Amino acid sequence: MTTRSFLAIVLAAGLGTRMRSSLPKVMHQVGHLPLVGHVLATVTAAGANRAAVVIGPDMPELETLVAKLSPDASCHEQTDRLGTAHAVLAARPALADVSDDVLVLFGDTPLVTPETVELVRKELAEGADVAVLGFRAANPFGYGRLLMDGERLTAIREEKDASDEERKVAFCNSGIMGFRGPHLLSLLEAIGNTNAKGEFYLTDAVEIATARGLKVTAVEGDERDVQGVNTREQLSHCEAVFQARMRKDAMERGVTLLAPETVFFAHDTRVDADVTLEQNVVFGPGVSVESGSVIRAFSHLEGARVGAGSTVGPFARLRPGADLSDGAHIGNFVEIKNAKVGEGAKVNHLTYIGDATVGAGSNIGAGTITCNYDGFGKHHTDIGPGSFIGSNSTLVAPVTLGKGAYVAAGSVVTEPVEADALVIGRARQVIKRHRAEELRARFKAAKAAKSKGD
Amino acid sequence: MTTRSFLAIVLAAGLGTRMRSSLPKVMHQVGHLPLVGHVLATVTAAGANRAAVVIGPDMPELETLVAKLSPDASCHEQTDRLGTAHAVLAARPALADVSDDVLVLFGDTPLVTPETVELVRKELAEGADVAVLGFRAANPFGYGRLLMDGERLTAIREEKDASDEERKVAFCNSGIMGFRGPHLLSLLEAIGNTNAKGEFYLTDAVEIATARGLKVTAVEGDERDVQGVNTREQLSHCEAVFQARMRKDAMERGVTLLAPETVFFAHDTRVDADVTLEQNVVFGPGVSVESGSVIRAFSHLEGARVGAGSTVGPFARLRPGADLSDGAHIGNFVEIKNAKVGEGAKVNHLTYIGDATVGAGSNIGAGTITCNYDGFGKHHTDIGPGSFIGSNSTLVAPVTLGKGAYVAAGSVVTEPVEADALVIGRARQVIKRHRAEELRARFKAAKAAKSKGD
Amino acid sequence: MTTRSFLAIVLAAGLGTRMRSSLPKVMHQVGHLPLVGHVLATVTAAGANRAAVVIGPDMPELETLVAKLSPDASCHEQTDRLGTAHAVLAARPALADVSDDVLVLFGDTPLVTPETVELVRKELAEGADVAVLGFRAANPFGYGRLLMDGERLTAIREEKDASDEERKVAFCNSGIMGFRGPHLLSLLEAIGNTNAKGEFYLTDAVEIATARGLKVTAVEGDERDVQGVNTREQLSHCEAVFQARMRKDAMERGVTLLAPETVFFAHDTRVDADVTLEQNVVFGPGVSVESGSVIRAFSHLEGARVGAGSTVGPFARLRPGADLSDGAHIGNFVEIKNAKVGEGAKVNHLTYIGDATVGAGSNIGAGTITCNYDGFGKHHTDIGPGSFIGSNSTLVAPVTLGKGAYVAAGSVVTEPVEADALVIGRARQVIKRHRAEELRARFKAAKAAKSKGD
Repeated sequence: MTTRSFLAIVLAAGLGTRMRSSLPKVMHQVGHLPLVGHVLATVTAAGANRAAVVIGPDMPELETLVAKLSPDASCHEQTDRLGTAHAVLAARPALADVSDDVLVLFGDTPLVTPETVELVRKELAEGADVAVLGFRAANPFGYGRLLMDGERLTAIREEKDASDEERKVAFCNSGIMGFRGPHLLSLLEAIGNTNAKGEFYLTDAVEIATARGLKVTAVEGDERDVQGVNTREQLSHCEAVFQARMRKDAMERGVTLLAPETVFFAHDTRVDADVTLEQNVVFGPGVSVESGSVIRAFSHLEGARVGAGSTVGPFARLRPGADLSDGAHIGNFVEIKNAKVGEGAKVNHLTYIGDATVGAGSNIGAGTITCNYDGFGKHHTDIGPGSFIGSNSTLVAPVTLGKGAYVAAGSVVTEPVEADALVIGRARQVIKRHRAEELRARFKAAKAAKSKGD
Repeated sequence: MTTRSFLAIVLAAGLGTRMRSSLPKVMHQVGHLPLVGHVLATVTAAGANRAAVVIGPDMPELETLVAKLSPDASCHEQTDRLGTAHAVLAARPALADVSDDVLVLFGDTPLVTPETVELVRKELAEGADVAVLGFRAANPFGYGRLLMDGERLTAIREEKDASDEERKVAFCNSGIMGFRGPHLLSLLEAIGNTNAKGEFYLTDAVEIATARGLKVTAVEGDERDVQGVNTREQLSHCEAVFQARMRKDAMERGVTLLAPETVFFAHDTRVDADVTLEQNVVFGPGVSVESGSVIRAFSHLEGARVGAGSTVGPFARLRPGADLSDGAHIGNFVEIKNAKVGEGAKVNHLTYIGDATVGAGSNIGAGTITCNYDGFGKHHTDIGPGSFIGSNSTLVAPVTLGKGAYVAAGSVVTEPVEADALVIGRARQVIKRHRAEELRARFKAAKAAKSKGD
Repeated sequence: MTTRSFLAIVLAAGLGTRMRSSLPKVMHQVGHLPLVGHVLATVTAAGANRAAVVIGPDMPELETLVAKLSPDASCHEQTDRLGTAHAVLAARPALADVSDDVLVLFGDTPLVTPETVELVRKELAEGADVAVLGFRAANPFGYGRLLMDGERLTAIREEKDASDEERKVAFCNSGIMGFRGPHLLSLLEAIGNTNAKGEFYLTDAVEIATARGLKVTAVEGDERDVQGVNTREQLSHCEAVFQARMRKDAMERGVTLLAPETVFFAHDTRVDADVTLEQNVVFGPGVSVESGSVIRAFSHLEGARVGAGSTVGPFARLRPGADLSDGAHIGNFVEIKNAKVGEGAKVNHLTYIGDATVGAGSNIGAGTITCNYDGFGKHHTDIGPGSFIGSNSTLVAPVTLGKGAYVAAGSVVTEPVEADALVIGRARQVIKRHRAEELRARFKAAKAAKSKGD
């Protein structure tokens, strides 16, 4: 990374009508992060000092989002949509004192990597005044072609204007461009709109700069990195590429994935080496899994921490605030929400632990429910370490069970239980001999009578 | 679509021995619809006035199925299996008064589209007497080749009879053929069986018609549309193509699919725009999901309606008769069967609601079970609007809870509860101090004694 | 298969540092069987009389594993890692009296098939003294090339030593070699280590044998069969190929897989013909599923037997020792562990059956829990045939319910229940009129008071 200053301009004003959605396009998500968030994270990782995001009119929710994702970024409204050069000019306040690198990127290309951004910056560092990011297209049809003269980029030719010879060029325009700061404003102001659509195109800067004798170059990136999102199908395609990257990265860092294609990460999922992820594991945002843990098949985790050497699933759900200490066991059909589960504690079957603390080494029987909501508010359940909660028990919060407490199976616990006490809250069973036989006989007789009566 | 009459003959007599199944081949399913059902739906969509299905002997279940899928279709039994022309003749009663288009299709090619059918009909409308649907094969080996002389189809050459030059032809026979009705019967009757297998081949109609000076043409369809099913692997391949089409169509209509390849539709699944389907969602037949709803990961839906703005899952199962009003919340490890869930009602955790009505705005606590079956019959549970059912409650049907009823956690409810009443049906807890400690000590002592005794 | 004797030498001393794991490389699993287990199973299936496994120093767990997988195999420690020839010599005790075929394979190539092994043995049977298994590489870069002179293999040329012409050769060395037993030791002893790394390479045997006038040949296998595992990504790739093979094999045997790519088998999974596997079924080791059964979506099975005509899932988990008789029904959110479920018995919803016997024809209501663990030991629950267990019941083990017993919903059963008896263990409900209304009013008032106080 150079020590040159770096301003990133992210164009995010598009409506994305082809998404058929009321949400601004760049707010659609990949890996649970909005598209524009990927671009902002990338430019930050690539060393941007500042970011300016150009948004459309009436997009307050996008402005709020940008402020949350990148508090230092400025937002600029493009009131009319008159082309990319016009969009960049909407960020004019941010352009006033730029000295070194200015890069224009798009809020709907979430797969651009910091390495790709650095390719463009390197061109500028090595003397280019304008540098365009290109890519070799497997099928160049429809893309603008980058026409080179040696190392110089002479023009960007749109499909419809291209000659037969030019159409054979596979080196295409990604739209991402870098400028030496001091030239930018003057180039933007020289761009006209005498074209079919009457718009101001940023790509026109190439020919203007060339005419002024500036050095204009192009650098080759990877086609997969510059894919944009215009439809939900393209969105799902970007999601797939993102997931493939996350899976590969996890495996390279020593995570075992039994069936990588069935594991879905969020952008911020942290999984340590020597963790095993079985088939069909879905991560929502905010999850970390520490070394030696196993996330078994069909598990769903969001906003949760899994301590070292823990086991989760199959068929487990960790919701936000689930915090498992080392060696915890969370089994099948178990939901944990906003609860700390102590070291080595076991919650193995058909249980809901919500708004609770489970002490170290405790054993929570199958079918246990913490009743955290009474219809009015949420309350806390505190289970001391070394406790044993018998199966099918109901713990009515707020309630506290002391260290080493023992709850008999099928009990309803409503009052505090002191340490080392046994608590029973269930009816004694009553047996009625032959009654099942009688019930069956009676049912049979009733049925026979009914069929006679029909 | 033309105004010409259109009779579709669907050949469905094959045993499908390579399926290794007792079920007639065309009854195997793609997207929960039998193969023959796909073909019948396609010809109906393409404007068929009538359909005649040729079935094999001893296939009463297939006849029943056809009657159910297409009440207007006629079924015809082919007693011996003596070739495709012989099969078409089995439908002779349906051929009596055909005037315009007759198309012969196969009950085991479920991916044929109405657009493809219309390609063949267009040939007939434009003057062809016989029109064959061909396709460009990626690997033509084994297929009959369509030999063209300009626009005319002169012969269909089987692989074994083809010259080296003819084997290079990639334009292959799909088997689907169209006839101008008045010619059909006479062509069929002219087809002989002087061949190695002694069978009557419909493809022979091409050379006979040409010899008679009739106009015989071929039209090109897509190879993927005409795939037949002879093995379970081919069946799973057709299922995959079908699913890919459904996913693409959903995305184009504005549905978000986080991981399209993990969502499985039935043929009749209806999902509105602006619905989100997370990973691993499986639809059985008869499901509709209305706008703004989210079906979270690991959900399974059959015969259910999901009202607008609802949330289902993760790990939820909606069974037939589940009917969610707008804004309902169905959470993890919850099963809903034959039950109406009112507007904004919440059933969030580890619950079974079967044969029930849940009033609007009610909250059903974790671990609630409606006991709809008493070993003899099924009974109904009626929960009034605005009710609160405490966790781990048992509602023994038939039972009614009035508006605003409140059930204490852990209760068993067997008698009707009036509106705004509180009901408690649980034992009071009894605490035995130090008893847990004593139990542990006793167990320890017993263990020590036992190990001494060994 | 010939009657010639066959010794398989399996090289398994590699550390696999690129796996970033503390486990020896060949102990990583594919289909729940360690890599080396696949190779041992393959050579056994191909008729090996003996197997000798060369392990690294300080790998006692690998030695234990080999003893468990193949009790007849011998283990040999290679104290220093000085190349493949050196590794084979570590198995010198096993080489003493070899008469016919000796094959050297690698413990990290789990996809080699018995058919491939037999290709090499056939070469030896037909007179070769040394036979190398080659493959046509899609991209040969990096592989040793097999240089042929007619049928004779003259040399194995490493990439770095190859001429431009030799680099064009796509026939590559898999590393798997066969030797006529009597020649092996003398060839091994002739191999030197005058090379860059100072190691003893088994491939040098080719030129030495040729120089001695022995017959050296190469035979072509399939590239996909000889893939080795050096990274977790390669491991997951081998797993994917293994799964694809298992799925194809199942379909060919008459199993229906709705979405093959979502079904995961273990190496020893046995599924009969006419079984249906829906989407997202995961098999751990030790499962058999008998004819006519349906495993519905989102099911997880380990160490379980599913009798004929049973239904499992969706969302079911069968754990080790689950043994379903014919026609059993296991429904959603149900866990079965170490339990025999009788013919036609139903366990349909939200239930844990552990350490239990469920008699034929019994019906286990939703929410039933067998409390098999009391904090000290595991106990058994015995449910007689034809029993009815009401919903949300708690069966506290050890406990026995006789034939035809009937448990009222919501009961806790702690004492034995005789045949045909009815047992109730729950509190009677108490209704407090208007109390819910009062509670809501009180809550509202408290809230208002609080907000006033703020």
